[in-house]
Formats: sequence, structure tokens, C-alpha cells
Amino acid sequence: MINKLISKIQKTNAPIVVGLDPTMKFVPEYIKKAAFAEYGETLEGAAAAIWQYNKGIVDAICDLVPAVKPQIAMYEQFGVPGMKAFQKTVDYCKEKDLVVIGDVKRGDIGSTSEAYAVGHLGKVQVGGSRLAGFNEDFVTVNPYLGSDGVKPFLKVCKEERKGIFVLVKTSNPSSGELQDRIMAGEEKPLYELVGQQVADWGAECMPGSGTYSYVGAVVGATYPEQGRILRKMMPHTFILVPGYGAQGGKGADLVHFFNEDGLGAIINSSRGIIAAYQQEQYARYGEQGYAEASRAAVMEMQKDIAQALEGR
Amino acid sequence: MINKLISKIQKTNAPIVVGLDPTMKFVPEYIKKAAFAEYGETLEGAAAAIWQYNKGIVDAICDLVPAVKPQIAMYEQFGVPGMKAFQKTVDYCKEKDLVVIGDVKRGDIGSTSEAYAVGHLGKVQVGGSRLAGFNEDFVTVNPYLGSDGVKPFLKVCKEERKGIFVLVKTSNPSSGELQDRIMAGEEKPLYELVGQQVADWGAECMPGSGTYSYVGAVVGATYPEQGRILRKMMPHTFILVPGYGAQGGKGADLVHFFNEDGLGAIINSSRGIIAAYQQEQYARYGEQGYAEASRAAVMEMQKDIAQALEGR
Repeated sequence: MINKLISKIQKTNAPIVVGLDPTMKFVPEYIKKAAFAEYGETLEGAAAAIWQYNKGIVDAICDLVPAVKPQIAMYEQFGVPGMKAFQKTVDYCKEKDLVVIGDVKRGDIGSTSEAYAVGHLGKVQVGGSRLAGFNEDFVTVNPYLGSDGVKPFLKVCKEERKGIFVLVKTSNPSSGELQDRIMAGEEKPLYELVGQQVADWGAECMPGSGTYSYVGAVVGATYPEQGRILRKMMPHTFILVPGYGAQGGKGADLVHFFNEDGLGAIINSSRGIIAAYQQEQYARYGEQGYAEASRAAVMEMQKDIAQALEGR
Repeated sequence: MINKLISKIQKTNAPIVVGLDPTMKFVPEYIKKAAFAEYGETLEGAAAAIWQYNKGIVDAICDLVPAVKPQIAMYEQFGVPGMKAFQKTVDYCKEKDLVVIGDVKRGDIGSTSEAYAVGHLGKVQVGGSRLAGFNEDFVTVNPYLGSDGVKPFLKVCKEERKGIFVLVKTSNPSSGELQDRIMAGEEKPLYELVGQQVADWGAECMPGSGTYSYVGAVVGATYPEQGRILRKMMPHTFILVPGYGAQGGKGADLVHFFNEDGLGAIINSSRGIIAAYQQEQYARYGEQGYAEASRAAVMEMQKDIAQALEGR
């Protein structure tokens, strides 16, 4: 799957992943109205609205980008109907041949991580049958419980030819509280230690061909200096970079997340794309044109990053 | 909700939480057979089986214990039908007046943690309505992203009078890889730093009456020495202690997780209770008596812990 991601990045010339993180305030009024008319102001109504909203965006951008990243929390907040909308979104994006990164940030003790791995990337045994639960291509994984919480994911990835992105240095303001702490003796921050683990796991998880492992890392665009260090420490690791646009970074700030080959990173934008019509710059599209506004915002982002990479 | 948990612990004399972590191999054949006859070997069939299995256990133990802790991964592995079984389990346990601790180990950047908090403990805004998604009483939270990933949970807890348990020192073998690292300058391991944060958050989160905050901690029974240190550092923190029985600990090893008042800890057992009928000690109950076997195992555990607390 990492090789599919890379070939799609090359084909689209867009190392971009669109974060499908719908909230009710992003969904155009006319979509909410229609959904509430059918299902009432219920969780089902909300789920119908975010699914319609997502579908419009996916249809508008699927030829421009290699991948999407639905943030499961935004669906989980609507309970079971929300989870159905998540599943529908994953399935639809896969139909459109997009690589789907489930931003689930799961992680638990070994046997429990195995259940998450099976549920999101693999197949669960039910009697004599093996069945897929959510079936993303990649998921994000939280490393706080150590390697026996991560390894079950690696096992399933190997079997299913899928991949993970491990949280190393997250994009939020307080990420440093634990992640930047310097370890005694090593004189290194915690995130470097996790980065080294990711590189080590990755060395055992190279697909048959290609130079990137299917064990990636999450490093926030908001921390360019740490990104530079980690890029060097993990030469065969693909970096998923959240925090473009709304959270801060621009293309020029992000070039050092990439390797010399122009690969090795994929930049996420969520609300900057999916709620583009709410920004002044794209206001002319109006609510009805929200999907076209998203398409325009993707093209703008593609240009910004391509220029930055050419210009370095 | 922390005060409800405490009063139920006192009433039952059982600082015990039963982990509802169903896997297909725990579910008696006759239950699987009936579920597959109705739904086939499908995710729906698996979900029906685990729900029936859970219901039997809950009916058998609900008068003996204050709380249950469904591990969401065990449901999530069965996709959307599994999530429905999770919700049904949560709702049923609340009907039986059990305190429900959703073992979800969520944690993300601020705005996303808010969605998790709302989805599991609070109410989400849909048009003019505010609706509950999964509606547990407590959830477990992963602290790797720092305080802006935890604070949205605190906000919702305050509004809804609910609570959280933050992962501090987990029960698994590799938990030390990050959690035991010594921080330069402070000469303290990472888990103590997180423990201190939990105590600090808790100081702002005391319910109107009572001596325990609604910000708890998870500390594995498998690490008694760390438990002793953390117990002292966090006097007003309730500790959720996984790892009894199957993972190792016995009552006598766990007394130092409790305060002098005999409170301050709640011990989890999962497979030791829910799959008791598969152990030699309870084999006489047979498959058909799996729920009664669970009841017997709870009574045994209650006695073990009560004796240990009396004997200290």
C-alpha cells in the first residue's frame, strides 16, 4: 500500500492528503436541511448530512489527490450512525481508488491493539469466515504503550499489505509537554526516541520493492525544526504532516519534510480544503459550490507545494 | 459520577470493575450457534453473539459489583455491528445501574479530543438538539498529546458530571519503553510526570463533596512498585488497576493501590471473570453455566481483595 501511495503521489504530482473531518458547522445549510427533513434532528440526520457533504467533496477532488484521511472522532461523536457514515466514506473513497488513511490514533496493550488492527486494517474471524470491519489502507497509531501495543498492527500490515503512521511529534500546542522532554543519559527528546523506534520497526517492514517502509510517522507541520531532525533520522520513513494551512504551515516551510527524491512526506489539510467555501478567498463559490471550492483549494495547495519543492 | 462510583463500591464492598472484553473464543458455542443461525457468519452474527454473551454476564453480576469496563476495541473489530453491540452493552449496564467505564483510550489534538469527549461522555449539537452518542460514565484517555488533548474531556466531564481515567503506567510488558524513561533534570520517570499532571488536573476537578476528583489514573497491577509511588503522589486520584488475575496480580499485591480509607482504587478483571467457565477452577459450570461461573469468580475476587484490605 505504501508503494500505491507513492505511485499515486507521483501521478498526481500532489503529496497531499485531504482530511475528511466533517463538523456540522462546515456542512452547508441546504445539505443539513435535506437530511433533517428526511431523518429529523437525530444522529441519523447528522450522519446523513456529513455523508452527503463528504461525497460531494470526494467527487470533486478524487482525481487531484492520492489519499484522504477521515478523522474518526468526527464520526464517532455521532454514535453508531456516525460510525456508519465513517464506513460509507471509507468504502466510497476506496471505490474512487483513493488511499484511505484512518486517523484513529488507536493504541492499547498487545491483545487489544490486535483487535484494533484487525478491525481497521485486517479481517476478524467469525466462525469459518474472515470479515473486514472498517477496512482502511493505513491507520494512525499512538505509541504511549510501547512496542507491544504497536507490533500487532505491524503483523496485520504485513499480512494485508497495508501500513501505519505512528504519532511521533504531533501538531498541537501542548505536544511538547511529554514529547519534547529530554531523556536522561541520552540527551534526546522523547520524540526522537519514538522516531528511532519507528525507523527500527520500518527496517523490518520494507515492501518487496521501493525505498519506503510501510511504517510511517506523524510529525506536525507546526514543528519544522523537529521535522528536519526526524527526516534525517528516518530516511526510509514516510511522514504524514498535519497542520498545513489552518494550523499554520505553508509549502515553503515544509520542504525539509521531504527527501531529496521529492518523496517521503504527505501533507494533510482538513478544514482548509473541506470548508474552503467559508473562507473569504473562496467565498464566491457559495454554499452550493462548496465542493468546487474544495477543488480550487486543493489546486492552490498543490501549486504551493510543487513550487516550494521545485524552488529548493 | 465519581461519588456514585464510591458509594457503589462501599455498598457492594467490592472495589471491582468487570472488563466486558468479549472475544469469539470466550463466547459459548451454543450462543454462537444461535446467533449464526439467525444472522449467518457475518459481523451482525458476531455482534449478536457477543451481546447475548454480555447480557448473561451482566445479569449474573450486576448486584455484586459497582462498575463494568467494556473495552471498545473488542467491539470495534466487528465494524459497525460491533459498535452497535458496544452501545447496547453500555445502555443495558446503565439500565442495571452499573457505572460504565468505556475503555477507549482516546486522545488527539484539542478540537478532535473534544469530538471524542462529546461522543462518549457528552452531547453533540445536531440542529437545535443535543444528543448523546455512546454515553458512558467514564472513559480512559491517552495523554501522549499533552494537556490540550486532555482538557476537552475535563470540560465535558464538568458539564455532565462524568469522569476520566488517564493512562499513567499501563499493565503491558513494554509499557516501560516510554513510560519509565527518566527525564533529564527532574530525575523522574515519564509516568511520574504524567501522574503529577493527573493530580494537578484533579485539583481543579473535585466534585462538590467527597475527597476524590473525577480525574482518575490507570496504573497496571503488574507494576506494584510504581503503584506505591503513584498512590502517594496522587492522594485524591482514583486509580483504575487493570491486570488482576490473568495478567498477574492478586489481592495481597494490590493493597498499596488503596488509601488508608480503603478507597482510591478499583481493580479490573476481564477474562478472569467473563471466561471463568473456561478455567479448571470453574469448569463444573460448563458452557451453559458461563454466567454463573462469572458470578462465582466475582465472589472469589471480592473475597480475595476484601481479605487483603482487612489484613493490611
